[in-house]
Amino acid sequence: MKTFSITSPDKSAVPALQAQIDNLTKPRGALGRLEQLCLQICLIQQTSAPRLVRPYNILFAADHGIERQGVSCSPREVTAQQVLHFVRHPEGSGVGFLCRQHGFVFQVVDAGVDAELPAGCGVIDRKIRRGTSDFLYGDAMTESEFDRCVETGAELVDRAFADGCNVISFGEMGIGNTSSSAMCMHYLTGIPLSDCVGAGSGLDSAGVRHKYEILRQAAENWTAPSNDAVKVMCRFGGFEMAMAVGAMLQAAERRMVILVDGFIMTACMLVASRLYPEVKEYAIFCHKGDESGHARLLASMDADPVLSLGLRLGEGSGAVCAYPIIESAVRMINDMDTFEAENVTKYF
Amino acid sequence: MKTFSITSPDKSAVPALQAQIDNLTKPRGALGRLEQLCLQICLIQQTSAPRLVRPYNILFAADHGIERQGVSCSPREVTAQQVLHFVRHPEGSGVGFLCRQHGFVFQVVDAGVDAELPAGCGVIDRKIRRGTSDFLYGDAMTESEFDRCVETGAELVDRAFADGCNVISFGEMGIGNTSSSAMCMHYLTGIPLSDCVGAGSGLDSAGVRHKYEILRQAAENWTAPSNDAVKVMCRFGGFEMAMAVGAMLQAAERRMVILVDGFIMTACMLVASRLYPEVKEYAIFCHKGDESGHARLLASMDADPVLSLGLRLGEGSGAVCAYPIIESAVRMINDMDTFEAENVTKYF
Repeated sequence: MKTFSITSPDKSAVPALQAQIDNLTKPRGALGRLEQLCLQICLIQQTSAPRLVRPYNILFAADHGIERQGVSCSPREVTAQQVLHFVRHPEGSGVGFLCRQHGFVFQVVDAGVDAELPAGCGVIDRKIRRGTSDFLYGDAMTESEFDRCVETGAELVDRAFADGCNVISFGEMGIGNTSSSAMCMHYLTGIPLSDCVGAGSGLDSAGVRHKYEILRQAAENWTAPSNDAVKVMCRFGGFEMAMAVGAMLQAAERRMVILVDGFIMTACMLVASRLYPEVKEYAIFCHKGDESGHARLLASMDADPVLSLGLRLGEGSGAVCAYPIIESAVRMINDMDTFEAENVTKYF
Repeated sequence: MKTFSITSPDKSAVPALQAQIDNLTKPRGALGRLEQLCLQICLIQQTSAPRLVRPYNILFAADHGIERQGVSCSPREVTAQQVLHFVRHPEGSGVGFLCRQHGFVFQVVDAGVDAELPAGCGVIDRKIRRGTSDFLYGDAMTESEFDRCVETGAELVDRAFADGCNVISFGEMGIGNTSSSAMCMHYLTGIPLSDCVGAGSGLDSAGVRHKYEILRQAAENWTAPSNDAVKVMCRFGGFEMAMAVGAMLQAAERRMVILVDGFIMTACMLVASRLYPEVKEYAIFCHKGDESGHARLLASMDADPVLSLGLRLGEGSGAVCAYPIIESAVRMINDMDTFEAENVTKYF
């Protein structure tokens, strides 16, 4: 696998930054989470005057072999249909209207959709193949496919970076990918599989039981289980997820702010952080969704999400939706006055 | 007290609106809280194409007699200083940079600040008098003062309405007003006083104990206790709070969307809803703050706040900060495509 050069942001400026935040015309700590986000972004950018520039949402799409086992209430064909919808009428899609609202560049990448998409349709073609293999019986992808995904994710982030982007969200579209994410969560955290499996895009309780039964069988069939992040991804991952892992790592190497969306992107950040723990310092966990395992996964990563709006759409919607709050954190330190400058008695 | 004509929004369109929301290109319910907010705003505006126009944040400021008892870590002089700061450099204040970020008209009203503010300074002068009386020993305000506050709040909302505003937030600045809010909460909900008292803008634990002791004494000294909303407000309220109550009621009469900020504005909405229960149907509870009683107060009102960012600034900051989420809810129904129009298999 491609190697990355990711280092923790230098923390030596923390006391000065904290003093600056405490001296804004508000009681100390009164802007709560905005103050923490501000400090994190200042450290990532190594400045006391941070800027968020040209935000991107890169959506990776791919199909999953496990979908053939009926683990989703949505049929596989929806992946390709939605991908085409994203590019034909971006502002009419779930994440698309949010991208327009908040000024995101919205890119859609075919990582492995099970359809031949029309040439020139606007989807970035990085198809590995038409969907992963069914992980009930074997590896979802080869290690060389995983490596190509990581390189591709990194390449796409570098393109965004070259375009001036310094804050980036990743989305996904792939019927079946909450199953992949549940397996990654289970093997990498040790949390019981039953606590990792949820309703996805809308299974009823019988559907969730069936999904769990399939995933339990898939775990049983993995005769050489491992908690190695690459092995887990090759066995259970999706092409869109593997590309997101590479993209997150490259974004951290480039010292970009990474906006982490819902359950699937949190699982990808988990995988990325097992490869390079420092990547988490560049991550803002934007949304706790409705998928039942998500709260537990976030807790296992000491992650405190910005929003909790019960979204379960994916596509990067939770991350893009949270963007104005992140922007508020940055504006706070740039725009607010200090006590001295405004002749206000410092209260605390 | 001035009477208001407030009716519940007509619910007959709910099935049609819900069908329209369910037919957008996303799994049913996948936009979670945004879908609920969208439905509420459609009902308030009686349309399936809602619009949020010319948002206002009206900040009411006043001083409190109870501040003399040392219930706040901030001195009374801060109220006037911050009020002047708001108008001299609005974008440099806590709520001011948020108003600029989200395009709010930001107005500051002197409801009863204990200072002579310079004429023409930009503060809207509706001073009742220089601070309420100390409620440790008697009524904070007379009923006729309360009535004037309600009329004034209503008048200011009507000015905003005439300016085209249909979504409105109310903020406050008043050293000591978490004490007033705690007393209102206690008498109107029956929740024990100790669960209503918190750290305000930053008391330490000894400070909270002292504040509780003062408020317990104030309760003991009220020899004719009542759960009548007007009586409770006259005994313990603030001029800024009473104006906010009138403003909320007028906003509901005008069928505007009311953005409810933190602990103090939630207490004002509680008072307003005891006078006219239907006002709550126009309210979006925007933020659960850090003040210890706030979560319990929200729960007692069946209110599920949009954000929980640990803010404890007041000024309307939590409401204004949540605005882009409310805007997302409105954009969803206006901008998103339907399954039929986009040839996507309806998944659910």
